[in-house]
Amino acid sequence: TTKYNICLLPGDGIGPEIIAEGVKVLNAVGAKYDTEFACEESLIGGAAIDAAGEPLPQATLDAAKAADAVLLAAVGGPKWDTTDPNAPRPEQGLLGIRKGLGLYTNLRPVQIFDALAGASTLKPEVIAGVDLMIVRELTGGLYFGKRERFYDEEGAGTNGAKGQRAYDTLEYREYEIERIARQAFEAARKRRKKVTSVDKANVLETSRMWREIVHRIGETEYPDVEIEDLLVDNTAMQLINRPADFDVVVTENMFGDILSDEAAQITGSLGMLASASLGDGTALYEPSHGSAPDIAGKGIANPLAQILSVEMMLRYSFDMNDAADDIRRAVTNLLNDGWRTGDLKDATTPADKVVNCAGMGDLVVKYL
Amino acid sequence: TTKYNICLLPGDGIGPEIIAEGVKVLNAVGAKYDTEFACEESLIGGAAIDAAGEPLPQATLDAAKAADAVLLAAVGGPKWDTTDPNAPRPEQGLLGIRKGLGLYTNLRPVQIFDALAGASTLKPEVIAGVDLMIVRELTGGLYFGKRERFYDEEGAGTNGAKGQRAYDTLEYREYEIERIARQAFEAARKRRKKVTSVDKANVLETSRMWREIVHRIGETEYPDVEIEDLLVDNTAMQLINRPADFDVVVTENMFGDILSDEAAQITGSLGMLASASLGDGTALYEPSHGSAPDIAGKGIANPLAQILSVEMMLRYSFDMNDAADDIRRAVTNLLNDGWRTGDLKDATTPADKVVNCAGMGDLVVKYL
Ligand SMILES: CC(C)[C@H](C(=O)O)[C@@H](O)C(=O)O
Ligand SMILES: CC(C)[C@H](C(=O)O)[C@@H](O)C(=O)O
Repeated sequence: TTKYNICLLPGDGIGPEIIAEGVKVLNAVGAKYDTEFACEESLIGGAAIDAAGEPLPQATLDAAKAADAVLLAAVGGPKWDTTDPNAPRPEQGLLGIRKGLGLYTNLRPVQIFDALAGASTLKPEVIAGVDLMIVRELTGGLYFGKRERFYDEEGAGTNGAKGQRAYDTLEYREYEIERIARQAFEAARKRRKKVTSVDKANVLETSRMWREIVHRIGETEYPDVEIEDLLVDNTAMQLINRPADFDVVVTENMFGDILSDEAAQITGSLGMLASASLGDGTALYEPSHGSAPDIAGKGIANPLAQILSVEMMLRYSFDMNDAADDIRRAVTNLLNDGWRTGDLKDATTPADKVVNCAGMGDLVVKYL
Repeated sequence: TTKYNICLLPGDGIGPEIIAEGVKVLNAVGAKYDTEFACEESLIGGAAIDAAGEPLPQATLDAAKAADAVLLAAVGGPKWDTTDPNAPRPEQGLLGIRKGLGLYTNLRPVQIFDALAGASTLKPEVIAGVDLMIVRELTGGLYFGKRERFYDEEGAGTNGAKGQRAYDTLEYREYEIERIARQAFEAARKRRKKVTSVDKANVLETSRMWREIVHRIGETEYPDVEIEDLLVDNTAMQLINRPADFDVVVTENMFGDILSDEAAQITGSLGMLASASLGDGTALYEPSHGSAPDIAGKGIANPLAQILSVEMMLRYSFDMNDAADDIRRAVTNLLNDGWRTGDLKDATTPADKVVNCAGMGDLVVKYL
């Protein structure tokens, strides 16, 4: 029996409910493939603020580093919302663990399950065949640059107005762009061999550097992969206009945050999208959706994105591609058979085919 | 006879073709309302680089400042694309005139013409009733902050890697946020009295300051207007999910660039969307689309966004609301009668209803 240690981070809102279903599926797969997944929970986000006064206790980071993989659910909620720069915020837990584990690559695949194609607000002929992968840089840019707020007594350099000033810094270094570019080209090689590099090179210096480095890496190391440059504003349009044309989309942290959510929404089923965050050590897997505080504790959340993040874990951390395929097949088949959680049901879904969170986890295990 | 001086900036690509139709319509309206629009052309963008070595010659800025309004077409094209930080770029002309005229407010209305609803890639029931206004801050943020690229011999603060480093700075001051917030609340008062303020307050210090100031202005000066906060990533989703729910959307420069193009694409007819850029002096009006170098010189471009930017000019700079209504009615009616430029035609459009750029300008004049 192979044994892996998994660090579980349930976090906030629906987190504890959905992660339980992820573990259920992980254990079922483990039994089939003679692998033991030893899971241990740690605190993160609002839950960690409440219990330990900080969103990412050192013990959590230590446990994550020591584990073979991290399975995260979601963090955040109105309880901890604040604009006070000194108050702890749940998101700091997420940003802290990304930085702490060096998770510079965020992979967000966007695919359509045929059974759910109708959920999209886009026309069926537009989303048919959508299968893209956003490769988002995750430990640089505006998220981690120097930031400050202060009172400017002089109003220097303005029209003389005194008042508050604040800034955030978008900074990149050559090696950060090189390594994320390589991740994108590697991903494209396993797919349709096309990388769209997104920047704002007509305005930003970091973007002009980004564009040069992506081209150098692509042309010298991956001549078999096609590179297309697209400005971020144009990309926001083309994702709606011709989403099926994209293969791999690589971009910096903030653009990636915006575009990956836009791309996710195109499917109409946010509850179905998982993500992997990779670095040089332990990797982390999480749903693309948030903590959904409005339905927390009701047991009705959709655990499928969490379960599909287990699929990504099996693929990327443990090279268990058969097991990963099993999960994907199970989810595809149960959807084809009409099973739905509340968020996925439509007017034609019969009441007895709507299941709750635990019920959906059980179904995946049954279909495995 | 009232007389107004208009500074025309044809720019690049299809610019000269479409601006000619804007002027045609402006003159027709002037004749009807006993107003003389004295138009004079100046250089901007790539055309100015070619003729004068710089994208915004001082003479152009002077002419714009002296005029009663500026009508711009579009700038840019592959001829001037470069990542060389020292080479002049057409976009600098656009950014320079925004800064030079102090145009801190960019209004981008997004509406659907019923006759063109089918052009959207979104389902008809999703885009029905879409009528929103993006209010984008236009002279601050990443667009105008300090930026630099240099070679870091030390690799300080990194994993020791030497190499290039670059940064851009996202900076805002209190008065910049106050004045754009007021513009948004004023716009909302003339509409459905709802402002969605978009930021990334869970990460950026500028966003936390933005959120506080928008709320202070709204709550103290515009208590009759509802304020909703939405994170930029969530906004990118909700624009696709429920576009008809938005009234006024206010945001900082870079988020506004991305979200206004996304919102424009929702209509499926980019060739129909105009924008106004306002400050404390001369205002500027331009189509939301670009210079379309691929069809430049063929005389087939769609001039309607340019013509609708004339509509906005009449409304915002000259308070000529009847004349502005005339233009909107003319465009609506000719579309209802089936007239199309090439970009707007679909499989059911009869060949004899497809007109070229000049033909569309003539039609608007005829329908006035
Ligand atoms: C919670 C937030 C800080 C985070 C981000 O912006 O990265 C989230 O939106 C995401 O995309 O994972
Ligand atoms: C051309 C470019 C610099 C400009 C911008 O980013 O502001 C354009 O995209 C726009 O939105 O007007």
